[in-house]
Amino acid sequence: MYQLIKKDGKAKRGRFTTVHGTIETPVFMNVGTVAAIKGAVSTDDLKEIRTQVELSNTYHLHVRPGDRLIKEFGGLHKFMNWDRPILTDSGGFQVFSLAKLRKIKEEGVSFSSHIDGRKIFMGPEESMQIQSNLGSTIAMAFDECPPHPAERKYMQDSVDRTTRWLYRCKKEMDRLNRLPDTVNPHQMLFGINQGGTYEDIRISHAKEISRLDLDGYALGGLAVGESHAEMYRILDETVPYLPEAKPTYLMGVGTPANILEAVDRGVDFFDCVYPTRNGRHGHVYTNHGKMNLFNKKYELDHRPIEEGCQCPACRSYSRAYIRHLLKAKEMLGMRLCVLHNLYFYNTMMEEIRDAIEQGQYREYKERKLSGMENK
Amino acid sequence: MYQLIKKDGKAKRGRFTTVHGTIETPVFMNVGTVAAIKGAVSTDDLKEIRTQVELSNTYHLHVRPGDRLIKEFGGLHKFMNWDRPILTDSGGFQVFSLAKLRKIKEEGVSFSSHIDGRKIFMGPEESMQIQSNLGSTIAMAFDECPPHPAERKYMQDSVDRTTRWLYRCKKEMDRLNRLPDTVNPHQMLFGINQGGTYEDIRISHAKEISRLDLDGYALGGLAVGESHAEMYRILDETVPYLPEAKPTYLMGVGTPANILEAVDRGVDFFDCVYPTRNGRHGHVYTNHGKMNLFNKKYELDHRPIEEGCQCPACRSYSRAYIRHLLKAKEMLGMRLCVLHNLYFYNTMMEEIRDAIEQGQYREYKERKLSGMENK
Ligand SMILES: [Zn+2]
Ligand SMILES: [Zn+2]
Repeated sequence: MYQLIKKDGKAKRGRFTTVHGTIETPVFMNVGTVAAIKGAVSTDDLKEIRTQVELSNTYHLHVRPGDRLIKEFGGLHKFMNWDRPILTDSGGFQVFSLAKLRKIKEEGVSFSSHIDGRKIFMGPEESMQIQSNLGSTIAMAFDECPPHPAERKYMQDSVDRTTRWLYRCKKEMDRLNRLPDTVNPHQMLFGINQGGTYEDIRISHAKEISRLDLDGYALGGLAVGESHAEMYRILDETVPYLPEAKPTYLMGVGTPANILEAVDRGVDFFDCVYPTRNGRHGHVYTNHGKMNLFNKKYELDHRPIEEGCQCPACRSYSRAYIRHLLKAKEMLGMRLCVLHNLYFYNTMMEEIRDAIEQGQYREYKERKLSGMENK
Repeated sequence: MYQLIKKDGKAKRGRFTTVHGTIETPVFMNVGTVAAIKGAVSTDDLKEIRTQVELSNTYHLHVRPGDRLIKEFGGLHKFMNWDRPILTDSGGFQVFSLAKLRKIKEEGVSFSSHIDGRKIFMGPEESMQIQSNLGSTIAMAFDECPPHPAERKYMQDSVDRTTRWLYRCKKEMDRLNRLPDTVNPHQMLFGINQGGTYEDIRISHAKEISRLDLDGYALGGLAVGESHAEMYRILDETVPYLPEAKPTYLMGVGTPANILEAVDRGVDFFDCVYPTRNGRHGHVYTNHGKMNLFNKKYELDHRPIEEGCQCPACRSYSRAYIRHLLKAKEMLGMRLCVLHNLYFYNTMMEEIRDAIEQGQYREYKERKLSGMENK
């Protein structure tokens, strides 16, 4: 379903066809943790700011409102009123970062909900079942996201278990997709490469999971505390061992600069909470770097956040007004900043796709990076 | 500037022409206290939900970001990016309800800011100066809003002072509107009738202020704790002594039922925080009464808040989804409820205007009221 349209260096310009429509890559997925983008942004807004893929979190939706309720409603697409692709994570990352008192076994993980403390068990089958109930376009395999740094022995054992879990995920998804009442019988599965900063573990794992011929492959366990240089080195080493003819997804990344560098290393799917989280704190992205709208120098600034930006915030409102809203703790201030930031990311991905098509990715990247340092 | 188009009983269908456009009355003004509608609603949204007039609060804007800053920016219309009419209150109500340690003298009121405790003095001239700096379409006279209940003697003294203050407001506005750098040299002034539930004080005050030939007249000091029946009685007694050929504004009112009853007594301007405040708590208005979307019975309800409603919430989202958003404390839930509630009020006012034009106001009112009791 992935068509590689053009390569420019290692940068890939692709097209990924799904039952919920086509995704032009490289793409930045917009994060809506609990089936809503934080900052009062709706799926109608997402269409206006050119979002291609929405990402929701399996763990959060399992805890509230519950994946069974969403299945009974007709799936996440109907629930959110979003007819374009949705990717759901596996819950693994949240289980390992949010949940309390977790216990990892071969079968899966036991833990307590971060909301009400109730005991939950999640393994590969449970994660697939929840994601099947949600009916997302793309499901992620259930993996362990090891801490950083981790001992080599721990990492190798963890990655081996993640591989065994991946086989179980695939088997369970095949079963679920054939059931008569499945929300999305065409649900796709992406496997996840792990191995921390041990490039040899990463490479052997990448080779191993590539054999499964999944719909796409992700790099997990990056942007968890290692330096940017280390992350880029791991991409340099690992991406060549993931199938070029499949989408490559770098999970949880990152800054505009991270994305520009990762595209140059062959990555074509991204997601990150930065644009929403920063927006809610009045930190906005521009081609001249990041701005803190709380700064007093904006109090009479008539200009939009970024001149020429066609987002709903910049089309209508000044820096001075948005600054006032943020200082007065009016939700509208956060909403406008989040809309601008997501639009910034989404349109940067459009520029990236154009640059690759024109065979000018490297020049584009350098120009964009130097502009952003120029704040 | 007010044209009385049609009367049906005492109900008035009017048209009020201002420098920022025409207001069709009866009208419900949408409250944006600090130059923003609570619930992440922007002025672009206000246009979509058919808002005619935005109302901002003088006291709040004086405290933050400051009316001088807004004047320097070019006035409130530019600051918020809203080209339709804006009414500003006088600050009196907030001074008497929010501020600490206030002291009333003939000159005005000394009090401490509710934000940072700093000492502020506001009298008729200061209120007019602040409103002139904001450049609103309609400024309200600075009055005392006496507590309810109040002794007759206190009320009479207060009303007498409010009358003296009104003369000072008018004089100061005339001066300000002639200054060369005034934001809106066509700013209009509405006087405020007071007198609590003493109808004789109300009536003599109404007669007295009517002589001033202001642009409009408001009834203040109602909906402050007296019963609905008492409020309707005061309207029955007082409105006939306010000029029919001017807009009549019932301040801070109210529920849909209150509005329906007050229109029937000759009122044509309204404002109230109910639709925004209730929306933020998941309480939404429908033609079958008010709904609490937190109720478990909506958890799988595919229907919009109100079937057939063309607001941005009902066009796209189900009760089940909005309930989930509210329970997950996602701002989007509040935003959708506020948009629906304001749209409900704004479209009810359209129905009211149509019914008066067709000479069927009484039938419309009875039908609407009985539907809403029918929840
Ligand atoms: Zn923008
Ligand atoms: Zn609605």
